[in-house]
Amino acid sequence: VIDVGLISLVGSGPVEPELVTLKAVRRLANANLVLYDALVGKDVLKLAPQARRLFVGKRAGRKSVDQETIHRSMVRAARRGPRVVRLKGGDPFVLGRGEEALALAKVGVPIEVIPGVSSVIAAPVPSDIPLTHRGLSSGFVVVAEHAEESFRPVLEPLAPNSLTVVVLMGRARRTTIASLLVVRGWRAETPAAIAVAASTDETFTWIATLDGLNTLLIFYSDDGRRTSTRPPTSGLTASRALAPSPEGSPPGTRSDARPSPRGWKS
Amino acid sequence: VIDVGLISLVGSGPVEPELVTLKAVRRLANANLVLYDALVGKDVLKLAPQARRLFVGKRAGRKSVDQETIHRSMVRAARRGPRVVRLKGGDPFVLGRGEEALALAKVGVPIEVIPGVSSVIAAPVPSDIPLTHRGLSSGFVVVAEHAEESFRPVLEPLAPNSLTVVVLMGRARRTTIASLLVVRGWRAETPAAIAVAASTDETFTWIATLDGLNTLLIFYSDDGRRTSTRPPTSGLTASRALAPSPEGSPPGTRSDARPSPRGWKS
Repeated sequence: VIDVGLISLVGSGPVEPELVTLKAVRRLANANLVLYDALVGKDVLKLAPQARRLFVGKRAGRKSVDQETIHRSMVRAARRGPRVVRLKGGDPFVLGRGEEALALAKVGVPIEVIPGVSSVIAAPVPSDIPLTHRGLSSGFVVVAEHAEESFRPVLEPLAPNSLTVVVLMGRARRTTIASLLVVRGWRAETPAAIAVAASTDETFTWIATLDGLNTLLIFYSDDGRRTSTRPPTSGLTASRALAPSPEGSPPGTRSDARPSPRGWKS
Repeated sequence: VIDVGLISLVGSGPVEPELVTLKAVRRLANANLVLYDALVGKDVLKLAPQARRLFVGKRAGRKSVDQETIHRSMVRAARRGPRVVRLKGGDPFVLGRGEEALALAKVGVPIEVIPGVSSVIAAPVPSDIPLTHRGLSSGFVVVAEHAEESFRPVLEPLAPNSLTVVVLMGRARRTTIASLLVVRGWRAETPAAIAVAASTDETFTWIATLDGLNTLLIFYSDDGRRTSTRPPTSGLTASRALAPSPEGSPPGTRSDARPSPRGWKS
């Protein structure tokens, strides 16, 4: 018997609200309180009509709630109400905040983890780039762009062209990362894609090659909103796995059901 | 206007039926035909009560449907019925069969891809091992055990102790993989876990260290069913990230809501 509420750490999946799981829907429907991040879609929040909703996200250009405050809110909430949902975009533990789980466990608050569809898995779909493909890419590696000291030691030793590379929040450092790989022996014409604003309604996917990544220009206003995007003038149509072998063919996979995927013959 | 049906390549998520997405539920409810794999749970299939259901999975020790036959079935189905679901466990493109997407695209059958919760993401949850954790593991790499020639070139060059390693279907080669890592400089006491039968009701998670992986014994009957499991006699309680730094603390995350996770102080 426990005298505090259960906190569910729930992944909401990507912004598309239909990619939320049944289990997440159930927890949200019964929640008293939902603590949510910046990357959680509005439609997902509507699944918790009875709950008080508290934004605890971090967002560029705005004052964010510090982690200690979030911990305190969660512990307080757990002591008060029986059904608390801590809602994160994607999956709760892919670049999530494990320190929240730590803080809760330290004070004896019981938690459960409900996995979600990660953007690692969902964001590449519109690019026609499969994470793995027989004979082409036998695995994939996932890093985040936060700090060069975190992705460089992982990416530098990789065997060139051996697997698919996924960089979360990688747009700002795309040129650095592309150069790093090419210098290490990755083919410059390796297909590459950028899912821009993958967790928002404004999402689009830009498809290029490793050495073409620097030609994408995106303009932002002071408050962090995208104002315009300038694709390179030469039309890029290549659309293959980021880790191809020269002879392999990529699977063409569409999220919008057109019969002939781009870049099939490239 | 298209004259053939749409084939939805749908990930059902892990075996826990509540981890299926709303979008998958909707497609299954309206499907005429569901082609499903071995790793799809029975409860998920019940979500398609109107559909004809066709097993096209591969299973150890039994005659499996060959890939050409699956392609032909899918193309035929798409020409006949408007709503076909190709249902796979986990996510459709993590070690999925991209060649099916290729085969369909080649003959002009429109497809859509509906991502699912991958076992890459869900299977580690009960182990208390986070895929990433600040200061401990900045990323993760995913390989499959199929053939040594596929995982060795990926794992060997990795910077030791730099990220979390996920090996899909890795149980049979666990000793090979552990040795490979230790020889390359990974610490022998690196926490490690095996999610046994992660996509079935019989799932359990076995938690050890890198050099203790060989102490798990699992017995199978001739038809591939597990008959018994013998854990090592010395109680292993370590439960930390597979890619820790010596000083880092792991997040303790529970899927069954107990307040004090195993191995916290280890």
